[in-house]
Amino acid sequence: MSSKHRVVVVGGVACGPKAAARIKRLKPDAEITIIEKGELLSYAGCGLPFYISGEVYSHNQLMATPTGVVRDTHFFKAVKGIEVKNHTLVKCVDREKKIVNAIQFETGETVSFPYDSLVLAVGSKYQKPPIEGIDLKGVNFLQTIEDARKIRNESGPLQDRNAVIIGAGLIGIEVTEAFKRKGMNITIVERLDTVLGELLDPEIAYHAHNELVANHINLRLGESVTRINGDDRGDVTSVTTDKGEYPADIVLIAVGVKPNTRLAKEMGLEIGETGAIKVDEHMRTSDPHIYAGGDCVENISLVTGKPMYAPMGSTANKHGRVIADNICGMNTRFKGVAGTAICKLFNFNVARTGLTEKAAKKLGYDYITVLNPSPDRAHFLKEAKLIIIKFIVDKKTGKLLGAQIAGQGDVAKRMEVAVANLTSGAKVTDIGQYDLAYAPPFSPAIDNIITTAYIVENKLNGIAPSYTPMEVKEKMDKGDDFIFLDVRSPEEYEEIRIDDPRVKLIPLGKLRNSLGDLPKDKEIIPFCKISLRGYEAERILFGEGYSNVRFMDGGVVCWPYEKVSGLKM
Amino acid sequence: MSSKHRVVVVGGVACGPKAAARIKRLKPDAEITIIEKGELLSYAGCGLPFYISGEVYSHNQLMATPTGVVRDTHFFKAVKGIEVKNHTLVKCVDREKKIVNAIQFETGETVSFPYDSLVLAVGSKYQKPPIEGIDLKGVNFLQTIEDARKIRNESGPLQDRNAVIIGAGLIGIEVTEAFKRKGMNITIVERLDTVLGELLDPEIAYHAHNELVANHINLRLGESVTRINGDDRGDVTSVTTDKGEYPADIVLIAVGVKPNTRLAKEMGLEIGETGAIKVDEHMRTSDPHIYAGGDCVENISLVTGKPMYAPMGSTANKHGRVIADNICGMNTRFKGVAGTAICKLFNFNVARTGLTEKAAKKLGYDYITVLNPSPDRAHFLKEAKLIIIKFIVDKKTGKLLGAQIAGQGDVAKRMEVAVANLTSGAKVTDIGQYDLAYAPPFSPAIDNIITTAYIVENKLNGIAPSYTPMEVKEKMDKGDDFIFLDVRSPEEYEEIRIDDPRVKLIPLGKLRNSLGDLPKDKEIIPFCKISLRGYEAERILFGEGYSNVRFMDGGVVCWPYEKVSGLKM
Repeated sequence: MSSKHRVVVVGGVACGPKAAARIKRLKPDAEITIIEKGELLSYAGCGLPFYISGEVYSHNQLMATPTGVVRDTHFFKAVKGIEVKNHTLVKCVDREKKIVNAIQFETGETVSFPYDSLVLAVGSKYQKPPIEGIDLKGVNFLQTIEDARKIRNESGPLQDRNAVIIGAGLIGIEVTEAFKRKGMNITIVERLDTVLGELLDPEIAYHAHNELVANHINLRLGESVTRINGDDRGDVTSVTTDKGEYPADIVLIAVGVKPNTRLAKEMGLEIGETGAIKVDEHMRTSDPHIYAGGDCVENISLVTGKPMYAPMGSTANKHGRVIADNICGMNTRFKGVAGTAICKLFNFNVARTGLTEKAAKKLGYDYITVLNPSPDRAHFLKEAKLIIIKFIVDKKTGKLLGAQIAGQGDVAKRMEVAVANLTSGAKVTDIGQYDLAYAPPFSPAIDNIITTAYIVENKLNGIAPSYTPMEVKEKMDKGDDFIFLDVRSPEEYEEIRIDDPRVKLIPLGKLRNSLGDLPKDKEIIPFCKISLRGYEAERILFGEGYSNVRFMDGGVVCWPYEKVSGLKM
Repeated sequence: MSSKHRVVVVGGVACGPKAAARIKRLKPDAEITIIEKGELLSYAGCGLPFYISGEVYSHNQLMATPTGVVRDTHFFKAVKGIEVKNHTLVKCVDREKKIVNAIQFETGETVSFPYDSLVLAVGSKYQKPPIEGIDLKGVNFLQTIEDARKIRNESGPLQDRNAVIIGAGLIGIEVTEAFKRKGMNITIVERLDTVLGELLDPEIAYHAHNELVANHINLRLGESVTRINGDDRGDVTSVTTDKGEYPADIVLIAVGVKPNTRLAKEMGLEIGETGAIKVDEHMRTSDPHIYAGGDCVENISLVTGKPMYAPMGSTANKHGRVIADNICGMNTRFKGVAGTAICKLFNFNVARTGLTEKAAKKLGYDYITVLNPSPDRAHFLKEAKLIIIKFIVDKKTGKLLGAQIAGQGDVAKRMEVAVANLTSGAKVTDIGQYDLAYAPPFSPAIDNIITTAYIVENKLNGIAPSYTPMEVKEKMDKGDDFIFLDVRSPEEYEEIRIDDPRVKLIPLGKLRNSLGDLPKDKEIIPFCKISLRGYEAERILFGEGYSNVRFMDGGVVCWPYEKVSGLKM
């Protein structure tokens, strides 16, 4: 063993450079080498859609520090004192002798790197589904700067051309906006029935869906691609699904990524149940001299305590720091991830963390849900915009299982509060006591997320029984008999309403004097615009001796089915 | 005792109506009466500056629910089933017989209200300093809708007229923006040396200061008003201070509020050390049948565990809910406040929670501070804007003592994370593991607040010794000998720099090869634009055997003293 600690890092994006730089800061005499198969390193992979849209002009901007210094090979050497070998591919690792063997592409030269500690930060690889025509010109994936350059440079002017995006996940949605900015006509083909279907429950996905439709995106949900078609020159021309055919000058396939585990498998390192490299709390693999982090490893879910695969640039950077600390002898632990994600779709924001309701149900949790639509700041300011908060809460522990927040307003702020609460291990009702920052331009006097915590408390205490919109729809479809009590004003009713014979309009202010119109032996489901008044109506009816009452969560705003204008009747 | 629970609530804004409405929901047969001395109730007091500016057209908007229903006397009766007696003043309370005696202004009638539970939500009153001329026409306070109406209706057109605002606290600052929108010329006179001086430390206040100056506000700090001057008709004409005289067509006095404790004192209820009504965790006063909440009570600080007076509309609403729960037999506790506040000044946002550094020092805490200026989202997006985070951290417990965040970017989001962390009782370094919501339009890959937690960790571990800008300035003024090592690029240096003979420019990329220029026996203080490179330089120098090195927190961006353009030299 050399007197100086030798560290070899495989992979030059996010986790790898982060680990390398911190090791050098903690242990200035460490000898650190980064091996990267591409040319570029330490770039912001999440910025690629913005490079495609032209909002980011040069790829150098993606590689720069916040103060504009480009992080290239020279930068790493001069500033960080770190050796970078790019265009270099690791062939194999001799774990016994602790030597990495690699090949330099350009020279063909074989190079060996002895190590005391090895860091695998080899990332993920996009999934390439077995579809005919996938290798046609104009069919793209998006993972590296090279991929983005290809889309930007080889496709010619994009204005008015046709794009088909396969996959309505995060990448698909982000590129949709980039393509739209370029003036393209866009079709999204998605196998699932909703957009962002793995991340959101249907009643939240519904609003994201509407925003895409409002922006003239042709959304083809529940369709599977069967073939990509091309012309004589090998250029893509259209995409065929089980339900139709869509013209395409450019195709983007964004159906997910999988961890890059080739090297780890060859080395005999343990692979976890998710298919990604297994690491302990110190980000150590099954070989104590080898650490791994970023998109190639699995994480522990802070909600379930079980492994999950959730590749994310923010997590990769956190991994890098933890790896560096442990290599330098500090006892730092990485506790896990919540599965947080956020996305901007045109003028709409959507964020999520933890489990969806679907997932919570599948895992057998006994839970309640809350839907809370309300303005994101003091309602008397014209800047106020609607946001909808959905909480899924474990009945047994009172802890947050998951949160989804969507709307044109400030979604991110409330998501951070949910994440902080979830991570702290506190009960979700504790949010009700957070002394959050209030002034009218920033929030209502009782912030939306505090109100949501209050509703959770009411539900857990059994004083606010309710149905979700889905449950009400199911009852309707089954032909159940109940009074669907709209307690809004006649003006609101005229503007937009749910069209069903069970609907009865009694404005909240008239309810106490209209009890004669409401039989006690029939189920009553009150609702309003957002169901603040729906809840109020329920409490009034309970007070008047009605027992079969449940308001509908989220009101008309969260009703994801057909609504009609009352005037049209 | 009547068979139905009788509740009397004194005070019709925020806490009172909130408590009344929830009691009615929890206990529908309770008989609830709200007694309010004014005409209006349940309005958003914090919206008054927006009513003055005209952004809120009608006061009814301030009294409306988020769905636009005006909460007047009729609304409370019809919707909530709550009796409201307005224009009614409580004269005295017979605690033994449990009777409130009040007088109805308009009729002169005396009315008695027996109660089982009494709620005091009597708010605060602005402070009226003993200044000559304070009763002149055109001298205003701002607390009620009536006050705001007076400013809006009695002052005539405000365009181009002169306003003097006495007090640069939250209300003074909010009204400054409202007056500016009306086209007024504004002078702010403040006794303290900085704006928002009770809430912020100087290096954060400095940026708020600059924003006001950039918006042509005449800021007169460290000046005390000695007299307000008027003409023959009793109209205000100018304000005289110990340093000058400023013309005034309108004066606003905003030097703080004090709790309204008249009634509580007359009733013999215990008053706390802050001068506000003392309540326990259940918001119960020293009389177990009497609760109090909102601006008339003191709170427990979540940081110090000691009483503090921090009136805030958001807190008042929380109090109302806790009071209702306890009156209805639920065992709900209010745990305290952090002292959070947020404010928009033109295009600048500033937020704070917990203790300032000044306060932490005064209270004898052993603390560290961190200053972290950085872009609020991915730096490659043109929407990215600077924010500065200051943390004050208890060395002993590793917990957050206070946070201040300021800048044109998204300040509120990071403040909520700080508040959630502080409230959860976790160590501040736990923030480093929060799985916050990352996508380029919302944050950098490593969010600013996570970076701040990392810096805290580095400082607590002793690997990032530093000076604050104030400490460096003090050393300069004392004539200390040191190398003030600017490690930015020559271009950045030309653009703006700190002008001092101790400054030496060695760009970070050249540092490893320029060690010959740096003596080991002299103290070296590296810095850059934001001190990311300053910290990096420190680690390099330590690695090269230098021992007397401390970087400067926050870099050039956080240097609150004179800076010059290098080209001008």
